[in-house]
Amino acid sequence: MPTITGVEITDVRFPTSLQADGSDAMNADADYSAVYVVLHTDGTAPDGAPLAGHGLTFTIGRGTDVVALAARYQADLLVGRDLDELAADMGGVYRDLTADSQLRWLGPEKGVVHLSLAAVLNAAWDLAARRAAKPLWRLLADLTPEQLVDVADLRYLSDALTRDEALAILRAAAPGKAERLAHLERRGYPAYTTSAGWLGYDDAKLARLSREAVEAGYRHVKLKVGANLEDDVRRLGIAREAIGPDITLMIDANQVWDVPQAIEWVRALSGFDLLWIEEPTSPDDVLGHAAVREAVAPVRVATGEHCHNRVMFKQLLQAGAIDYCQLDTGRLASVNEIVAVLLLAAKFGVPVCPHAGGVGLCEMVQHVSVLDYVAVSGSLDGRVTEFVDHLHEHFTDPCVVKDAGEGVGYVVPSEPGYSTQMHPESVARFRFPDGEYWSAARLEAADGDAAVSA
Amino acid sequence: MPTITGVEITDVRFPTSLQADGSDAMNADADYSAVYVVLHTDGTAPDGAPLAGHGLTFTIGRGTDVVALAARYQADLLVGRDLDELAADMGGVYRDLTADSQLRWLGPEKGVVHLSLAAVLNAAWDLAARRAAKPLWRLLADLTPEQLVDVADLRYLSDALTRDEALAILRAAAPGKAERLAHLERRGYPAYTTSAGWLGYDDAKLARLSREAVEAGYRHVKLKVGANLEDDVRRLGIAREAIGPDITLMIDANQVWDVPQAIEWVRALSGFDLLWIEEPTSPDDVLGHAAVREAVAPVRVATGEHCHNRVMFKQLLQAGAIDYCQLDTGRLASVNEIVAVLLLAAKFGVPVCPHAGGVGLCEMVQHVSVLDYVAVSGSLDGRVTEFVDHLHEHFTDPCVVKDAGEGVGYVVPSEPGYSTQMHPESVARFRFPDGEYWSAARLEAADGDAAVSA
Repeated sequence: MPTITGVEITDVRFPTSLQADGSDAMNADADYSAVYVVLHTDGTAPDGAPLAGHGLTFTIGRGTDVVALAARYQADLLVGRDLDELAADMGGVYRDLTADSQLRWLGPEKGVVHLSLAAVLNAAWDLAARRAAKPLWRLLADLTPEQLVDVADLRYLSDALTRDEALAILRAAAPGKAERLAHLERRGYPAYTTSAGWLGYDDAKLARLSREAVEAGYRHVKLKVGANLEDDVRRLGIAREAIGPDITLMIDANQVWDVPQAIEWVRALSGFDLLWIEEPTSPDDVLGHAAVREAVAPVRVATGEHCHNRVMFKQLLQAGAIDYCQLDTGRLASVNEIVAVLLLAAKFGVPVCPHAGGVGLCEMVQHVSVLDYVAVSGSLDGRVTEFVDHLHEHFTDPCVVKDAGEGVGYVVPSEPGYSTQMHPESVARFRFPDGEYWSAARLEAADGDAAVSA
Repeated sequence: MPTITGVEITDVRFPTSLQADGSDAMNADADYSAVYVVLHTDGTAPDGAPLAGHGLTFTIGRGTDVVALAARYQADLLVGRDLDELAADMGGVYRDLTADSQLRWLGPEKGVVHLSLAAVLNAAWDLAARRAAKPLWRLLADLTPEQLVDVADLRYLSDALTRDEALAILRAAAPGKAERLAHLERRGYPAYTTSAGWLGYDDAKLARLSREAVEAGYRHVKLKVGANLEDDVRRLGIAREAIGPDITLMIDANQVWDVPQAIEWVRALSGFDLLWIEEPTSPDDVLGHAAVREAVAPVRVATGEHCHNRVMFKQLLQAGAIDYCQLDTGRLASVNEIVAVLLLAAKFGVPVCPHAGGVGLCEMVQHVSVLDYVAVSGSLDGRVTEFVDHLHEHFTDPCVVKDAGEGVGYVVPSEPGYSTQMHPESVARFRFPDGEYWSAARLEAADGDAAVSA
């Protein structure tokens, strides 16, 4: 009986702030980081290779060690578990990891203990999929409606979605799975790019990257806004001119506004034919998003990357606060909570367009989006999943996007697992604080100080 | 110029789970704990004693070290600060401690990084009050409306409360401060007790403690419910018989129900003449609380101990979801966020009845409630602040309750500071994992294991 023999948790940080990659109105100096969890086993994959599970949550620098410490308590509960029992009852694994009321107090179901839970559960799901020799989306799409509902956390949702309603949604999506998958295998899952529009990029770089995005086949481009209205008007003008009138443009304020300010600012920018305003205000403000949505139409409202759990998504949907659900695979508690949100969104008819970028998020969201189309919502209407072309080289099975003639899309993942395994060399180099990169950086800084003193 | 010379952060855990103190439907085995922050200085108090600031956040066992690690990053920002500059600009201190976008990502403004921020800022406020030789409530009540609004975090609130409205509330409360204070000094701030009704207590203990509460002068008694309906009916019957018809009875479900279940359960208990149902469902569920409130009237709805920030309280008030605002001094980001919530509650006419119990919460909430009555809401209507008689012996200036003939009340604090200093001996004994208590407990456990093996 193969079991989980040990857990390895690493704080990995990439020095992205040096190039202003990822800069926005709230986050000027993000160092894209991850709490990286590896579940070691004494088992083997069907092909005979040693079997391990890999998961992560995405952070942006300081405090990654805090999340890693919380992950330790949660991941240790998995050591000694029988692999087959684990894979057969991933709902039970979720319940076991969330049953600790002492850790629950520190959220509940939010913040550090929820980010760490995501990392650990993502590793468990990667392990389950590798054990089955399937990409994660297929492991899930092959489940019966009952099995898939059984892994979903429906607690606190029954006023909006009952178990019977969830089953009905999945049963309705059962016919046509093969056709939808075949479509995705031709076209790819529709993707948009944020790489052109980081706030720290100058105008020339913005114009060049916007043009290059369209040349690469993107039909949607997203820009960061919210630091300065005059700058935003100029930058949107540059971007709109670069991409032309037929490409869809979205904007993202990363929570910098109060509700009245959001309304005023978005109205001032609405002449640039914008599809959505993303994160106009506090991610906790369900009623605020509803007010913004009503006031800025026809610009639509998108949010979710900081929406901390399914109860918040339930309310965003109940309140009619969002047009697009941007769930995050490092912030929600992995598949168990993500499936619940996919079901809620399907019930309310709101497209799920997951947040990605960062470290490993693109690798994960492709599984979520494929699952949503093949087995849950059954629809691509209004769907477009974020893609950012950073840091994929650190993954053993990186996501791939291509344009097969209908716009760029994610190529459907085919390797077993959740695509969350990082190259050991990358982990060793960027491990914080003692990886080669950071050790050398500290030496250089010390040299610089010495030179200044001398 | 005296400055902050160092920070001491301690994980302190009390083995309360051994007596089922604090047991409820969600938390069966809480070990009341604290992240305890001491800001050391080279200054002296006006009476010549060495000056330090003491703050804490309340946790219930495992994971307290995770919060302590986060507190380290935040507290270190205060080392080297000039005491007078700090005391003169506590709004600036708050902004400095919340400006780190990398740590913000781990919330934002929720969970571990917000609990740790509360501990650090509570210590800074204790320091500022001691420097001024005033109890914290008086330091704040003596500020001008402009000064008090300047320390409050009003970000994300302007759709519900503008700065001008906040100033108008405080100006309206200015007349009568002296009379209201004199009233409190006679009567004490009204208090209720939860000590009688923990879920782990047997029926005889429940009956005895309920009678003793009334004999001690309490006019309000609260019971934990939600594990089993039949048990709840029996226990409420016992309690109601013990306290008689004239004492107010409240119940607390600690988040165990979905919304439809909460409605059904509370309706089944409403024959016991209940003032409020506390925490009927997920603390994140603003719309759920509103639905429960509408359905269970005349039983009222109270929540807040897990309400993670001012944006959530704003929505609870906007949605008409609560009758009582139970803010928590270890979960909100200290005075800066608490004052914002007091102002919001005053604007919406909802009484603030802070959550207490745990470790040190009673010591802190007395300052908040006195401030609210003297300088913000100016009202005692419907106000009653929680009191639990546990662990006060570990504090150097413990809160005191007394019955001056109109029901038990908190005696207005008179010592300088926030009443948050613990006895060094208590910290040394219950420090985790290496304090005397826990070291001995591990030795005993090891002996027990040895005996079993032998």
